[in-house]
Amino acid sequence: MALSPYQQLEAEFRRLHAFRSAASILRWDSAVMMPRGSSDLRGEQLAALETESHTILISPRVSRLLDRADANAQVLEDWQIANLREMRREREHAIAIPQNLISRLAKATSRAEVKWVEARQASNFAIFAPHLEEVTGLLRDKAAILGKALNLDPYDALADEFSPGLRSQEIDAIFTTLSRRLPGLIHEVIDQQADRQPLEITGRFPQSKQRQLATELMKALGFPFERGRLDESEHPFTGGVPGDIRMTTRFSPTDPLTGLMGVLHETGHAMYDVGLPGEWRGLPVGRDRGMAMQESQSLLLEMVICRNRPFLQYLRPLLDKAFGVSGPVWEVENLYRLLIRVRRSLIRVDADEVTYPVHIMLRYELENEILNGELQVRDLPEAWNTRMQDRLGVRPGRDAEGCLQDVHWAVGSFGYFPSYAIGAVIAGQLYESLRADRPELDDEIAAGQFGGLFDWLRQNVHGLGASLSTPELIKRATGKPLSAAAWLRYIESKYLET
Amino acid sequence: MALSPYQQLEAEFRRLHAFRSAASILRWDSAVMMPRGSSDLRGEQLAALETESHTILISPRVSRLLDRADANAQVLEDWQIANLREMRREREHAIAIPQNLISRLAKATSRAEVKWVEARQASNFAIFAPHLEEVTGLLRDKAAILGKALNLDPYDALADEFSPGLRSQEIDAIFTTLSRRLPGLIHEVIDQQADRQPLEITGRFPQSKQRQLATELMKALGFPFERGRLDESEHPFTGGVPGDIRMTTRFSPTDPLTGLMGVLHETGHAMYDVGLPGEWRGLPVGRDRGMAMQESQSLLLEMVICRNRPFLQYLRPLLDKAFGVSGPVWEVENLYRLLIRVRRSLIRVDADEVTYPVHIMLRYELENEILNGELQVRDLPEAWNTRMQDRLGVRPGRDAEGCLQDVHWAVGSFGYFPSYAIGAVIAGQLYESLRADRPELDDEIAAGQFGGLFDWLRQNVHGLGASLSTPELIKRATGKPLSAAAWLRYIESKYLET
Repeated sequence: MALSPYQQLEAEFRRLHAFRSAASILRWDSAVMMPRGSSDLRGEQLAALETESHTILISPRVSRLLDRADANAQVLEDWQIANLREMRREREHAIAIPQNLISRLAKATSRAEVKWVEARQASNFAIFAPHLEEVTGLLRDKAAILGKALNLDPYDALADEFSPGLRSQEIDAIFTTLSRRLPGLIHEVIDQQADRQPLEITGRFPQSKQRQLATELMKALGFPFERGRLDESEHPFTGGVPGDIRMTTRFSPTDPLTGLMGVLHETGHAMYDVGLPGEWRGLPVGRDRGMAMQESQSLLLEMVICRNRPFLQYLRPLLDKAFGVSGPVWEVENLYRLLIRVRRSLIRVDADEVTYPVHIMLRYELENEILNGELQVRDLPEAWNTRMQDRLGVRPGRDAEGCLQDVHWAVGSFGYFPSYAIGAVIAGQLYESLRADRPELDDEIAAGQFGGLFDWLRQNVHGLGASLSTPELIKRATGKPLSAAAWLRYIESKYLET
Repeated sequence: MALSPYQQLEAEFRRLHAFRSAASILRWDSAVMMPRGSSDLRGEQLAALETESHTILISPRVSRLLDRADANAQVLEDWQIANLREMRREREHAIAIPQNLISRLAKATSRAEVKWVEARQASNFAIFAPHLEEVTGLLRDKAAILGKALNLDPYDALADEFSPGLRSQEIDAIFTTLSRRLPGLIHEVIDQQADRQPLEITGRFPQSKQRQLATELMKALGFPFERGRLDESEHPFTGGVPGDIRMTTRFSPTDPLTGLMGVLHETGHAMYDVGLPGEWRGLPVGRDRGMAMQESQSLLLEMVICRNRPFLQYLRPLLDKAFGVSGPVWEVENLYRLLIRVRRSLIRVDADEVTYPVHIMLRYELENEILNGELQVRDLPEAWNTRMQDRLGVRPGRDAEGCLQDVHWAVGSFGYFPSYAIGAVIAGQLYESLRADRPELDDEIAAGQFGGLFDWLRQNVHGLGASLSTPELIKRATGKPLSAAAWLRYIESKYLET
């Protein structure tokens, strides 16, 4: 029997997925395994795979099939209709941008990234500025074209690539709430914490032992090592593809907690991939629901679950077993205080969860202003430094610790940053519902039982893939629209203990 | 300016190369890094890449461009004409076989390989027989169709895929010479060696030390670690792609020499890839000249250069440094006798270089007879065992040590085996010329200087890529057509010392 248009689309998108997942494994290889000198070849391989993926998406055949499948949608099940919607979404994004602009952007960002590395090392913004200028110029074109095609504001069109359905209107509402409460809150928390400073960890912790402990924890959390790996790389990430997940981390010989929390963060991402609906694998509807949801899962596990007393009760004896440590430094309460310490600091990736949104809101403001022309690239360092002082009370002495610290803008990822803070907010809201649904959660975590946690997440988030929009997903999981309220309640009860 | 048909072909074949090299890295990943449970996804990725490569090769566009470039060949340089010839060769192979037969073969060999593993473990040929039957039936069709398209005998059409230009006529001539001399020679050598049995190695040799020594040797040989890696896998191989070479090996804790010789063998392959003409990279003319030439390079390094006294003089102090070994077992002469020991044995991959061609000639006979229907698959075990007894004086007690020992037939690689023995013969002929051109070779090797060796190989073999046919290449390098004479001289002078 001949395949229906919908079935033919499934085949096309599975082929697309095969190319993309091949590329994803190769990107992991580049970061973790590839000899340093082979990046030229890898660039050619990835370019060929990306071009082929793009060609499939924009092909007239896919366009025709989409129209025919849509016309006959009454025979489809709900998830198939969602799949069709996601296919169309991907296609609309791909086809909107002229090939010429895509390749100019690819070249400009590839140059800019190299220059960014150089500029950051020298802490010299001037090296990077003309390249960022070029990238933002092209991004302005892209945002305008994409916005027109998708009927979105230019910034939202870019953000939609990272977190489908996330709009400035929601971001602004949440960020307004946060910026009203956070400055005062940060002040109170730091004040309160000053009275009970934790004891510092000293000593050396063999990386092989750290790796062993991390592996043990990942297994306890349910990470399937027959379907994934843990390796080391300069910048930790979770790559590969659902069904073959490649996690990486980085261990410091003097600081076992940071490496461990990094692993737990990435395990949060990985478990999202693990929990995606297997029967939709390889189809757009079977993917995760974008970067904000991804970040909600890593932050929920690392920040909310693991930087918390019940988890530390479970962890403490494992630390002892791994490193033979005891004494007051290694008591649960001291570890807890080490892990929830709040500081006014310059570097986003090292920031605690209370000040973190401030780092994001700064970037969100600045990238909006650069994009709409209010802020000139050459004025970025001064704007950054002044506002950092203004918002968080610290001022970078060098641009390497200021506007040169993140790679995102160099590679053209404008519209990405909000996903981090919105992810935190989503994590807070999910956590509130999770606790209400599962009063025994703390006891389970303290006993090293994570099945209940992940059952809930699978049922309410992971297992739904991309079948619902982000707002729908959050409404379904928590009964409420997305807002910063639950996260603020979580933060206040955690950081302002009485 | 518009690209010429020839230039457009170059672009198409570079794209093809990008897909193939991506697949090659993914195959390495499957063997070395991939989690065990992820092979289903990997299968989909590789199938997508292979289908795309095939689609490029058989496209009407490539066909048209080839005709137009041929018609205008007078403007091309010699290497470009060779490139065009190799492009056409690849295309002729790809287009000759109907898509339907390709996919039936892919499915049959994939099933047969699984059953082969099972049959070998149980040493039960009956498990494998029906699947081998199916594979050989399809291969007969393939050989007939391909033979007709390429104007070759069916067997030669299959062999041409592995070693372009290698024909039964040459193979038969060489094998006739070998089978006249080898039985007597093996007898004499074993007789002579009986009088001076080497002392056996005992003890344990940490794998990390073995790996360190192997790496040191690879560096001394000139392997560029910025363009390649060494890892461990169940079956050693050299994969990846020129410019990103992925070697693997396997170390035994009780036998440091076998692991080391394995690394040297693979380094021979790798150095061929390293020496290929960089300016033709990604083009058919820039590839190696097939499996027989590849094998000549691994055997030249392992068997001829390294299983020899000058190399062992260089190696001895390195063994001492790595493992702290001394005494009579570790004297150069004893090591030499351990490494050139000749035995009548059952397993091809463990065979010494004198008996090795006997193993190959047996398989060549049998696969020819199966292909032309003279031998039935069900009669294979008996034919194997009887002829093994007849040719080498040993008879397998179990099929796992007989006709089930190699994977080649299961995966449909009929016509591959001769490349191993012809590779040895080529190595012997190259070595004779190399010694004549470079009388100082032994002294250089003993001093750990390998530059001269690889300069010669680069000039006479590696650097020519696929610009000449195998016979032309050998004629150019040695001044003579390929024959078994030089190899027999080398073997006699090495193994029948007076």
